[in-house]
Amino acid sequence: MPIVVRNTPRTDPELVDGLGRAGVATVHEAQGRTGLLRADIRPIFRPARIAGNALTCAVAPGDNWSIHVAVEQAQPGDVLVVAPTSPCDDGYLGDLLAESLRARGVRGAVLDTGVRDVASLTKMGFAVWSKVIYAQGTVKETPGNVQTPVVCAGVLIHPGDVVIADDDGVVVVRREQAKDVLAAAEAREANEASKRERLANGELGLDLYDMRGRLASKGLRYVDYADGS
Amino acid sequence: MPIVVRNTPRTDPELVDGLGRAGVATVHEAQGRTGLLRADIRPIFRPARIAGNALTCAVAPGDNWSIHVAVEQAQPGDVLVVAPTSPCDDGYLGDLLAESLRARGVRGAVLDTGVRDVASLTKMGFAVWSKVIYAQGTVKETPGNVQTPVVCAGVLIHPGDVVIADDDGVVVVRREQAKDVLAAAEAREANEASKRERLANGELGLDLYDMRGRLASKGLRYVDYADGS
Amino acid sequence: MPIVVRNTPRTDPELVDGLGRAGVATVHEAQGRTGLLRADIRPIFRPARIAGNALTCAVAPGDNWSIHVAVEQAQPGDVLVVAPTSPCDDGYLGDLLAESLRARGVRGAVLDTGVRDVASLTKMGFAVWSKVIYAQGTVKETPGNVQTPVVCAGVLIHPGDVVIADDDGVVVVRREQAKDVLAAAEAREANEASKRERLANGELGLDLYDMRGRLASKGLRYVDYADGS
Amino acid sequence: MPIVVRNTPRTDPELVDGLGRAGVATVHEAQGRTGLLRADIRPIFRPARIAGNALTCAVAPGDNWSIHVAVEQAQPGDVLVVAPTSPCDDGYLGDLLAESLRARGVRGAVLDTGVRDVASLTKMGFAVWSKVIYAQGTVKETPGNVQTPVVCAGVLIHPGDVVIADDDGVVVVRREQAKDVLAAAEAREANEASKRERLANGELGLDLYDMRGRLASKGLRYVDYADGS
Amino acid sequence: MPIVVRNTPRTDPELVDGLGRAGVATVHEAQGRTGLLRADIRPIFRPARIAGNALTCAVAPGDNWSIHVAVEQAQPGDVLVVAPTSPCDDGYLGDLLAESLRARGVRGAVLDTGVRDVASLTKMGFAVWSKVIYAQGTVKETPGNVQTPVVCAGVLIHPGDVVIADDDGVVVVRREQAKDVLAAAEAREANEASKRERLANGELGLDLYDMRGRLASKGLRYVDYADGS
Amino acid sequence: MPIVVRNTPRTDPELVDGLGRAGVATVHEAQGRTGLLRADIRPIFRPARIAGNALTCAVAPGDNWSIHVAVEQAQPGDVLVVAPTSPCDDGYLGDLLAESLRARGVRGAVLDTGVRDVASLTKMGFAVWSKVIYAQGTVKETPGNVQTPVVCAGVLIHPGDVVIADDDGVVVVRREQAKDVLAAAEAREANEASKRERLANGELGLDLYDMRGRLASKGLRYVDYADGS
Repeated sequence: MPIVVRNTPRTDPELVDGLGRAGVATVHEAQGRTGLLRADIRPIFRPARIAGNALTCAVAPGDNWSIHVAVEQAQPGDVLVVAPTSPCDDGYLGDLLAESLRARGVRGAVLDTGVRDVASLTKMGFAVWSKVIYAQGTVKETPGNVQTPVVCAGVLIHPGDVVIADDDGVVVVRREQAKDVLAAAEAREANEASKRERLANGELGLDLYDMRGRLASKGLRYVDYADGS
Repeated sequence: MPIVVRNTPRTDPELVDGLGRAGVATVHEAQGRTGLLRADIRPIFRPARIAGNALTCAVAPGDNWSIHVAVEQAQPGDVLVVAPTSPCDDGYLGDLLAESLRARGVRGAVLDTGVRDVASLTKMGFAVWSKVIYAQGTVKETPGNVQTPVVCAGVLIHPGDVVIADDDGVVVVRREQAKDVLAAAEAREANEASKRERLANGELGLDLYDMRGRLASKGLRYVDYADGS
Repeated sequence: MPIVVRNTPRTDPELVDGLGRAGVATVHEAQGRTGLLRADIRPIFRPARIAGNALTCAVAPGDNWSIHVAVEQAQPGDVLVVAPTSPCDDGYLGDLLAESLRARGVRGAVLDTGVRDVASLTKMGFAVWSKVIYAQGTVKETPGNVQTPVVCAGVLIHPGDVVIADDDGVVVVRREQAKDVLAAAEAREANEASKRERLANGELGLDLYDMRGRLASKGLRYVDYADGS
Repeated sequence: MPIVVRNTPRTDPELVDGLGRAGVATVHEAQGRTGLLRADIRPIFRPARIAGNALTCAVAPGDNWSIHVAVEQAQPGDVLVVAPTSPCDDGYLGDLLAESLRARGVRGAVLDTGVRDVASLTKMGFAVWSKVIYAQGTVKETPGNVQTPVVCAGVLIHPGDVVIADDDGVVVVRREQAKDVLAAAEAREANEASKRERLANGELGLDLYDMRGRLASKGLRYVDYADGS
Repeated sequence: MPIVVRNTPRTDPELVDGLGRAGVATVHEAQGRTGLLRADIRPIFRPARIAGNALTCAVAPGDNWSIHVAVEQAQPGDVLVVAPTSPCDDGYLGDLLAESLRARGVRGAVLDTGVRDVASLTKMGFAVWSKVIYAQGTVKETPGNVQTPVVCAGVLIHPGDVVIADDDGVVVVRREQAKDVLAAAEAREANEASKRERLANGELGLDLYDMRGRLASKGLRYVDYADGS
Repeated sequence: MPIVVRNTPRTDPELVDGLGRAGVATVHEAQGRTGLLRADIRPIFRPARIAGNALTCAVAPGDNWSIHVAVEQAQPGDVLVVAPTSPCDDGYLGDLLAESLRARGVRGAVLDTGVRDVASLTKMGFAVWSKVIYAQGTVKETPGNVQTPVVCAGVLIHPGDVVIADDDGVVVVRREQAKDVLAAAEAREANEASKRERLANGELGLDLYDMRGRLASKGLRYVDYADGS
């Protein structure tokens, strides 16, 4: 039987916002290249960048009833996460539900399904990442779990995990690891800034990262075109 | 042998424009969640919204000859509909054909194939929905039917049916049903406006749609996280 | 063992820029409808248009090491071409590598893999065509060939071949054929300009291209709807 | 509201069986290369070959209720045709439903969805063509139309049209055209038998079909490798 | 840093074998329609049916090193589960690794990647479910985790969970739930046997499941074809 | 204009047959993990294994005319290779063409398109690898090149290169490299036989390949489940 779990813990807003500033690619690297959703989960408009606490929702194919249930559990700073129990491209979210989510302080949504009303959602500035854009409507016959762990687009997500989404896609950080990952992400960013400047000035990565010796040990050889490649 | 059907009936322009204003998602709901083309038929630029009478065209793979034949049958307010007889991603339509269609008053095109010259089409503002963007050229060896019923991207379309296309995709309304569907769409829109306002003010869908009893009868239970989910 | 070929020949910059002005669809037609990369290779922002000498790079799955090696071989006016040795969607290129490539005068990149940092790349105006946008990071363990012939997205590309990329996709012209293809492309463009004007004025392609006789010989028949299609 | 249409006409069993003997490729050619379902509709075991009257059934995503409704409308010699109202890969049919269909004389099934229990169906010899094999179960909440025209895998199918399915896929012949198509198919088969023998004896298609002149007129040239291709 | 977890708990072999007898579709239903891997995970030969304890293994793209590490952790009755950290179709498993796994008592393998040497694996009778068959070789540069929880083909799998695989695909049962799920599966099977017989005798599901009233309450109507559908 | 190149060189039959005995996976490894066609090119029946000289053929979408032209250029021991100039799933080859090819000593075919008449081809034992099985017929309007280099399913193939195809897919060896690759393949096979026996006897790959030190240097750690993974 479907359940709704109330009063699930959230991640500290400062950690959430810090991870949001770091962005998807940096956070993904900072936690050891894990946590990325499938590449077919794309934003409906660009640029877009949000971060928030996962408000999770399992849905039956062609049935968006539990999203209505989820809205009541929303808290400001949440990001709706919708995982179908079997693959479905239907438009589970439209502008009415988006109004309702926004009224509750939800910052956006990530769906491993379709979305619709994207012109209206774009005008509202309500950011959505989805598998597809599809106007196909849904029914309300089979409720699913709300605020339980789900696998969404290949990644396990618990309520209150941090969802970071931008033009590169979506990454999830476990609530328990948010502090450490943020520290690692910020260290990485500081490190990248100086490297970026040196590369922009024409220094080679081969030298900056001291790669030549290791490349030679892997057998890399340089030949001249004139010698007949 | 291929045929061209002349003097096919059109749908009343007021109905067409009314359906265009309602948009794809609303029209699709208003006619009982039918008539949507496959989700991979996408606009080449956004935002885009058109509605018009279907000017249908069957094409052989890699051969766009019948589009030239179709231009002659075009009337102002038409939307070109291109259905390949076997799947093909080639660029059946480019800017020259678009100029020709526009000169005849055609409002845009829907192709279950590829399209090309999209930078130029975007500059022209000629709206196209297609399966893919692909520069691959086509030949003119095998003409196909023009203005006969076709299945395009999974939907049966007759000449003179109403094609509505926007950022959500494409929906088709049978000519005979255009009046009823428009009435249903307008009723739906009126109904949604007030709901939208109530949801934007924070009212829950659970209450607005009176869902709690039915959810309980489906077995939905609420538990507290502290009790161990 | 992996090799890097140095001092490969380039194509004359005037030919390159001329082909770039002609654009993908025209160049593809001008060389007999050949040389187009697969349709799923798409630009990360639009509009975008570049042309340059191919700087080729073979990469192992999940490993972007040879792109660092390729940067050293870059010359102003090059376009990086990345071909994986087995299919991979990882984000082989991000903003640091793009800074490095830009510092060397590279005009953009074409990858039959993923790309990341697309918000940043867009802000930089560094044009990239790729199979997918995906933040997944890569390792540096297995170098691949640089500046050897590769098959990228279905097309054989030699170092110094001309890569033309725009909103329609990517086409490649062999270095040895660049002059002839440019001449054919320019002839085609001159021819199209007058046709475009005539079509825009309402002349039919059926007449402009004198198609009616050949259509009739293929058996095309015109019937009237009233006679029962 | 969903409807069930009773007492729909069937096609004469002799025509059905004749078309079945001709097979998919021949029938498809005999009716002018039309009527083929999408190529991803594949048999669950091979070899398999059936033909029968279409017993059509529209289903909601994740909901196979109307198949139960369809069983009651079945007549001996029917083939079940299942078309989802939006794309769905769930396993709409398993061995219990297959027993029920077989008890009514149904010869097999064609589904633009998933199927399950394929080991059991194979043991029963109940032939099924489907988009995918997937054990995902379905609900019974939303009935759909039975014995109305549907678009299944890209083809319009009416109740009582002839469905022919074999290792090559599935083709549909309109009831009204079954007699003519069968005649054309049999003529084609007679013609092919003699050609097959001549080709098997080493005669070239170039000669048998008298293609050399037409190829030359298309510009085909023969060159010798030694002259440097 | 990658880790190998030793001495992970297994599920009782009687439960494992009982679930194996029930099969994928039944087990999936018995645990509330959960636990199914994506439908593109298919057996390399049919019929095939295995059940065993999950021996989990995370792999880098194009790198099968951790499978070698996993072999040492194998126990008789295990099923190897391979989850790539980003999507990859390479052939991670061939006949040598299969020999090694079989020597340790491993019953088969489930890979969300490619597999190779399938002719040899078929001859050995070593059952493998994979996303694709692909001969592409892999490197041994980047070890991944062994015997940690993984998401494989969309499903969270812990070491020692029960993996059931047959011609319908793959389903996973959590170790803690194996006993309850087996009981539910056996109850379901007992129930189905009698239904199957009644359906085979021509009884309608509409009657057997007492559906007519509920269908009517959903608005299902019966009309006669002669009345004009 | 299309050309046919006559009298192209072939590879020595002993090399061809030796490579065929080695099989796809071994040959692919023996030539440095190159030359594999895309994984979606699959045999129409299994088991199947052939090797032969490439008889290449470029085809327009939906047009198989040049296969007829190719038949005349066939020599015993050839394998037909069909590459479309833009992607197409049509059934380019059926049983009549197969009879014709077989009469000329052609051993099988590899098509980056569809194939049809697969029941008949299976009965004939004529092995075909293709992207899809699809009955869709083709026209004969636009001839393409025969016996020129083509890119087929992602790999450059010259006439007379060696095509090896088995249940794992298809690999190509350049004519000039056939001798060296065969030698490397045979060395590899000899080496694998002894390894296979040791692995089958329970020896671990970790020991056989002496991996433990290198794994440790990569940071691999062993932990015990009881310590809380």
